[in-house]
Amino acid sequence: QLKKLLDTFHYADIAEILDEVNLEDAMYVIKLLDSETTADILMELDEDNREKVLKNLSAKEIAEEIEELDTDDAADIIAELPEERQAEVIAKIEDLEHKAEIKELLAYDEDTAGGLMAKELVKVYETWTVAGCLRRIRGQAKDVTRVHSIYVVDKNEKLLGRLSLKDLITAKSEQKIAELSNSNVDYVYVDEDVEEVARVMQKYDLEAIPVIDQERTLLGRITIDDIVDVIREEADKDYQMAAGISQDVEADDSILKLTRARLPWLLIGVVGGIGAASIIDSFSGNLGPYIILLSFVPLIQGTAGNVGVQSSAIIVQGLANGSIGNNVFKRLLKELLLGLVNGIAIGLLAFIITHFVFGAPYNVSFTIGIALITVIIMAALIGTFIPIFLDKKGIDPAVATGPFITTSNDIFGVFLYFLVAKMILGF
Amino acid sequence: QLKKLLDTFHYADIAEILDEVNLEDAMYVIKLLDSETTADILMELDEDNREKVLKNLSAKEIAEEIEELDTDDAADIIAELPEERQAEVIAKIEDLEHKAEIKELLAYDEDTAGGLMAKELVKVYETWTVAGCLRRIRGQAKDVTRVHSIYVVDKNEKLLGRLSLKDLITAKSEQKIAELSNSNVDYVYVDEDVEEVARVMQKYDLEAIPVIDQERTLLGRITIDDIVDVIREEADKDYQMAAGISQDVEADDSILKLTRARLPWLLIGVVGGIGAASIIDSFSGNLGPYIILLSFVPLIQGTAGNVGVQSSAIIVQGLANGSIGNNVFKRLLKELLLGLVNGIAIGLLAFIITHFVFGAPYNVSFTIGIALITVIIMAALIGTFIPIFLDKKGIDPAVATGPFITTSNDIFGVFLYFLVAKMILGF
Ligand SMILES: [Mg+2]
Ligand SMILES: [Mg+2]
Ligand SMILES: [Mg+2]
Ligand SMILES: [Mg+2]
Ligand SMILES: [Mg+2]
Ligand SMILES: [Mg+2]
Ligand SMILES: [Mg+2]
Ligand SMILES: [Mg+2]
Ligand SMILES: [Mg+2]
Ligand SMILES: [Mg+2]
Ligand SMILES: [Mg+2]
Ligand SMILES: [Mg+2]
Ligand SMILES: [Mg+2]
Repeated sequence: QLKKLLDTFHYADIAEILDEVNLEDAMYVIKLLDSETTADILMELDEDNREKVLKNLSAKEIAEEIEELDTDDAADIIAELPEERQAEVIAKIEDLEHKAEIKELLAYDEDTAGGLMAKELVKVYETWTVAGCLRRIRGQAKDVTRVHSIYVVDKNEKLLGRLSLKDLITAKSEQKIAELSNSNVDYVYVDEDVEEVARVMQKYDLEAIPVIDQERTLLGRITIDDIVDVIREEADKDYQMAAGISQDVEADDSILKLTRARLPWLLIGVVGGIGAASIIDSFSGNLGPYIILLSFVPLIQGTAGNVGVQSSAIIVQGLANGSIGNNVFKRLLKELLLGLVNGIAIGLLAFIITHFVFGAPYNVSFTIGIALITVIIMAALIGTFIPIFLDKKGIDPAVATGPFITTSNDIFGVFLYFLVAKMILGF
Repeated sequence: QLKKLLDTFHYADIAEILDEVNLEDAMYVIKLLDSETTADILMELDEDNREKVLKNLSAKEIAEEIEELDTDDAADIIAELPEERQAEVIAKIEDLEHKAEIKELLAYDEDTAGGLMAKELVKVYETWTVAGCLRRIRGQAKDVTRVHSIYVVDKNEKLLGRLSLKDLITAKSEQKIAELSNSNVDYVYVDEDVEEVARVMQKYDLEAIPVIDQERTLLGRITIDDIVDVIREEADKDYQMAAGISQDVEADDSILKLTRARLPWLLIGVVGGIGAASIIDSFSGNLGPYIILLSFVPLIQGTAGNVGVQSSAIIVQGLANGSIGNNVFKRLLKELLLGLVNGIAIGLLAFIITHFVFGAPYNVSFTIGIALITVIIMAALIGTFIPIFLDKKGIDPAVATGPFITTSNDIFGVFLYFLVAKMILGF
């Protein structure tokens, strides 16, 4: 009965349920269903759960699941296995063509077009006729869940163009493919970064894109569903990095895993706090009547942190979507102006509040106001400069936002504050 | 010559160029090209630039562009016009069916499925045969750029199922549509939130989804290219909100626009700083020998901020992708444990550094360590609780991360610090 019930469910829904139950129940369901369904379920499970399930399956059983999957997913699952098991599972795959294709895909870096593409696609030779083409496509299309475009190649498998199923249906049966083929076909190179592939597919509204090598040989095809996953994963990763969480973690991961992702960033923050402490320590002995300055350290520090995060977030996003050109100087100038505008507004407000509400003497309030302007400008410049610098060095600028910026602004902010105070008040 | 050159370009590339040149040049290019191309270019321009271009076109000219666009894009462009112009432009649309469809779409909220769908789709009646169907589809498909699924409806336009072009091609021509139709069709209701539509399409790997009303009437269709844009925009928005930037701004927006998006959040931070200042002020008079405690305010505050942002980011993401269930108590308990683990690690480290490096007395170092543990736990709980609370109240929890959490943690953190210190040291 359970089997009958589950057969009415979509595999993505079953995977969602299995992610919540314990391993024993999950294994029971997986053994119960056909490998056609379980293969898809496996792909949709959380990575941690998939690992556990795969540990409980024999190499033969895994190979059976693999036979049901498209080559891209098959290669991804195999890549997740421990090295020794990989060879074992591959050896057990019966379909030789499938096996060869999977082995080819395993060679590509997972962050490149090659790591994302599948070998499943429909291709026709330029010399075929529409009628012959439709006949052959009926054969090829059985293995290809969604056809999208049909790719036209020459006898050396070089990509020449594409045509849509619609073109084919509306054409006359004796027409040659070469006449119908649209040579204006988009493509990506096999070593292109996946984020760039996502940008291209989004920009041109593509549902599938062929992958070629430097000789234009058609190697595979990337479909939009996998790109949607890439976009979502990259966005989640960037969001987490900005919040000071490394690694891909989820709310329901273990405390150990969450600690490993979070503690290192907190320790960077501790460095900032300790740095600020030594700066305060070295100034505070001489403060004398200006001891009230210490009360406003959180104001200085918090504002510096917020400004830095704002500036760097805009830059990180601009770098990610390519909207920032090469003009670093112009960007810094703009942040300088922006810092000046925000700084004057906040500095003035702080002057008024500290003087009239806290009753700080005129010169102390003036100091706090000027210090805020200075610190805000500095924080904006640091927040702009660090991501651009990292990007130029080939490091993902997304790591720069969050704790890293906050920490450096903590130290510089507090230092600048006391420096300005010393210059104005002369203690 | 320029026209010939531009004709070889993709409209998305032309739009990218026009976004960079001045308005005069952009208008020159737009007048030069056919409205078939310029309509697509218009859709791809940055919103600010589109607004300027539209201001320079007559109602008649805009209507001509609109005629070339799919209904979803047409409705979006019209919605961006000032109210008086909207009626003017609509009156000038010649295609009466197109006009009626656009007017229908204008009625839906832009954050719902109705606001995202297009009226363009291919539909067949269940009583048709494959042969008749293919004939009619050749007609309908001319207006539909990409066919994806063919939707099967009854005589009252109620959605019954779907079939793919592939099904149709591989079927026998005398077969009835009702036999081929797959009744297991995914759909969304017209008032569904777009983010939920995106989740459904991503989960089931759909390239298009039909939109229906409560009576199952087929109203329109949403395609994945528009969902990709939604996902990217939502991610950008959440990222900016977490960094304390409201509104949708880009690096190249004006200083005024950037200030409006950034200054309000900085002012919230100022409130936190001022709050912390009054707390410090009220304690610092009695510190006596424990004045060194003031040096470690940035450490406390920075750590509280970082922990709070980490906790809230995980919760905000979990709420967004639906992986957090209803068990608020379990989540708080987990963050409590996590806070304890991180707190003990950081508290111990701070004890060692302040005692052995800064030479703080044993009891002061002990105070700082205990205060850090307390503050970290509190920050983790606040960071978890606020987004869940906002979500329950129907407010987007993404606003909670960033400055909001940092600010409340600034105040509570500093307060707890001195409270713990007072209890241990008894000043
Ligand atoms: Mg899951
Ligand atoms: Mg792969
Ligand atoms: Mg990458
Ligand atoms: Mg697009
Ligand atoms: Mg588009
Ligand atoms: Mg795939
Ligand atoms: Mg990235
Ligand atoms: Mg642009
Ligand atoms: Mg719309
Ligand atoms: Mg998916
Ligand atoms: Mg998938
Ligand atoms: Mg559309
Ligand atoms: Mg959102």
